[in-house]
Amino acid sequence: MASRICDSVLVTGSNRGIGLEFVRQLVDSPSPPVKIFAGCRAPNGPRSQDLQELAQKHQDVITVVQLDTTSPTSIAEASKLVEAKLEGKGLNLIINNAGVNIPGSLAETGKQEMVDVYTTNVVGPMLIAKDFHHLLCKAAAQFPHQTSMSCRRSAVINVSTLLSSITRCPENFYRSPMYPYRVSKAALNMLTRCLAEDFRKDGILVMSLHPGWVQTEMGGSKAPLTTAESISGMMKVITNLTEKDSGSLLDWEGKNIPW
Amino acid sequence: MASRICDSVLVTGSNRGIGLEFVRQLVDSPSPPVKIFAGCRAPNGPRSQDLQELAQKHQDVITVVQLDTTSPTSIAEASKLVEAKLEGKGLNLIINNAGVNIPGSLAETGKQEMVDVYTTNVVGPMLIAKDFHHLLCKAAAQFPHQTSMSCRRSAVINVSTLLSSITRCPENFYRSPMYPYRVSKAALNMLTRCLAEDFRKDGILVMSLHPGWVQTEMGGSKAPLTTAESISGMMKVITNLTEKDSGSLLDWEGKNIPW
Ligand SMILES: NC(=O)c1ccc[n+]([C@@H]2O[C@H](COP(=O)([O-])OP(=O)(O)OC[C@H]3O[C@@H](n4cnc5c(N)ncnc54)[C@H](OP(=O)(O)O)[C@@H]3O)[C@@H](O)[C@H]2O)c1
Ligand SMILES: NC(=O)c1ccc[n+]([C@@H]2O[C@H](COP(=O)([O-])OP(=O)(O)OC[C@H]3O[C@@H](n4cnc5c(N)ncnc54)[C@H](OP(=O)(O)O)[C@@H]3O)[C@@H](O)[C@H]2O)c1
Repeated sequence: MASRICDSVLVTGSNRGIGLEFVRQLVDSPSPPVKIFAGCRAPNGPRSQDLQELAQKHQDVITVVQLDTTSPTSIAEASKLVEAKLEGKGLNLIINNAGVNIPGSLAETGKQEMVDVYTTNVVGPMLIAKDFHHLLCKAAAQFPHQTSMSCRRSAVINVSTLLSSITRCPENFYRSPMYPYRVSKAALNMLTRCLAEDFRKDGILVMSLHPGWVQTEMGGSKAPLTTAESISGMMKVITNLTEKDSGSLLDWEGKNIPW
Repeated sequence: MASRICDSVLVTGSNRGIGLEFVRQLVDSPSPPVKIFAGCRAPNGPRSQDLQELAQKHQDVITVVQLDTTSPTSIAEASKLVEAKLEGKGLNLIINNAGVNIPGSLAETGKQEMVDVYTTNVVGPMLIAKDFHHLLCKAAAQFPHQTSMSCRRSAVINVSTLLSSITRCPENFYRSPMYPYRVSKAALNMLTRCLAEDFRKDGILVMSLHPGWVQTEMGGSKAPLTTAESISGMMKVITNLTEKDSGSLLDWEGKNIPW
């Protein structure tokens, strides 16, 4: 039997795009997690039908959880619900996938765009790490004390992007300025790095992962990767993460991206 | 005669700390700028007395400008006032110095702290770059077309920090977690890098500068550097910046800091 990626996982923004495909591949894996929490800001909205159908088909594994990453109340409530469903067990893995992009030139970018994108892409993952910390700690503690870090044990994965790389910005800036998005994702990388240091003592791995350029609403139809290709790559990377990867930024093929 | 650092300069957050010392050293330099715009969010407040006295002493050079970097209206008004005072000339240099820090652990950090610090430290400099862009362009255009970039010609300097370095985060995280601050300053570095690419065609240099750990209200009394030492170092660095420094992060001694 293939080894299980982990016992329990939360994926945010899982009603479409990369998040939905994550849930699909997790539940379809040879040895699926016991519990998959599918975070979604409007579980009963028209854009959540595919997720609801999938959850219906795998009622014993998938729980759809209302989770708007811009709302501290929604995050706190989701943490309580997940805790109750875990019945005393910890949560092994969080995939902070929910994200937004408001493209546009500098002239088209104002305070509102900057703050809105930052709130979803950075503040959300920060509040989630904070409100689910005790559940991640519990998961880590369920392993013998000196066990190395892994996603099987306890981890936070922040879905970042190549466009978060300050080093590589000059290569791709002109093709896609995207001030609010780039700036927020560089900020997310710093959050990853801070959390990796902060949570090291608890045995929780934290890293940033770039899915590649993927055919979703955000990625557009010109993207070279299907969600299936991107997520099967990321699943391999996630399965193989160890202590040395905590605080890093890798792409869907496991290649390092400079800050 | 020593060569002039530039003809006109705007310094934000100039009523105390590093900003005030910048204005002081600029006006006291052997060949001071013709016009110094001292941005200050409460020009008539109790914390602006030192700046007002300095401005009084150098009425012909220093203009105190109301400038709250969290307010798009205040920024737009300041841009109009500076434009009027420049009487058809461009603005050579902007020093985005205004900044805030809300220290505290992850548990002590919420959405409000994250958004407030981001708004001052990142959104402010972005809006300022945008609203003063035409004046920077005008300054750059006053030099012959192929002149290399410099602060004498046209530049934006974003005051960043060593704590903005994602690479170096593990070295100093435990001494000072400061989530909102670190995350905002990494974001500011990405803003610097985007603006450097965006403004290159206009001949405007953009870079991030770390002042060192300095004795101010923010730096505290244990800091090793006085404002006089930090700013005299930064003045040398600023004077010597060229094209190759656009998009970089340097410290007050001119040493490169990795992203
Ligand atoms: N596609 C690419 O090429 C690419 C490349 C690099 C990185 N990424 C990153 O990958 C992640 C997923 O992107 P995607 O391509 O799948 O984008 P997408 O197709 O636009 O889907 C975004 C997902 O995030 C959710 N979301 C947005 N704001 C939310 C909020 N406040 N609370 C909860 N959920 C929220 C959306 O839910 P609603 O349906 O409710 O809006 C949706 O499920 C993002 O972090 C993105 O930055 C994508
Ligand atoms: N001191 C250090 O060791 C150190 C190290 C690295 C980087 N830095 C950076 O250096 C810069 C200056 O820091 P400092 O040490 O001089 O700090 P400080 O002593 O706390 O002074 C901060 C200045 O920023 C102004 N400011 C804050 N929010 C503002 C807003 N919304 N609009 C306009 N002005 C605003 C303050 O004005 P009010 O009087 O109105 O509050 C004050 O003039 C900051 O960007 C900081 O991050 C400092």
